[in-house]
Amino acid sequence: MKAIIHVTLKKGVLDPQGKAIAQALHNLGFDGVTDARQGKFIELDVAANTTEAQVKDMCDKLLANPVIEDYRVELRSKS
Amino acid sequence: MKAIIHVTLKKGVLDPQGKAIAQALHNLGFDGVTDARQGKFIELDVAANTTEAQVKDMCDKLLANPVIEDYRVELRSKS
Repeated sequence: MKAIIHVTLKKGVLDPQGKAIAQALHNLGFDGVTDARQGKFIELDVAANTTEAQVKDMCDKLLANPVIEDYRVELRSKS
Repeated sequence: MKAIIHVTLKKGVLDPQGKAIAQALHNLGFDGVTDARQGKFIELDVAANTTEAQVKDMCDKLLANPVIEDYRVELRSKS
């Protein structure tokens, strides 16, 4: 089974990396971009009996910083 | 409109960050995790007339390294 995790900065937390991306895209001539935010995307291969609660536990303990980051978890059976 | 971009390492490219995550999860007692891969997740606010081709152009020129990374692009109207 696969666990797909998206970790993003909470709304209101300054994202300097995103700002740098937006600025660089402007410099390249992509003027339509008004904002950019960057997050992490983590794909785990997990045992078939893994629950969403376990994956959230992993996020809280290691993968995300719950003070400034949100995460969302999705479990997918391999196909 | 929002452009959602996932940048991941190509299959076969060594992912030391992912290996570190898998090892750290093992050390925390999450034994069900057999592999981890980490990628980037970028959210752009773009003008409403932006096409997928333009966003792919941004990926090729700035957001991804096409030599070792794959990306996928998704356009979403704001709701």
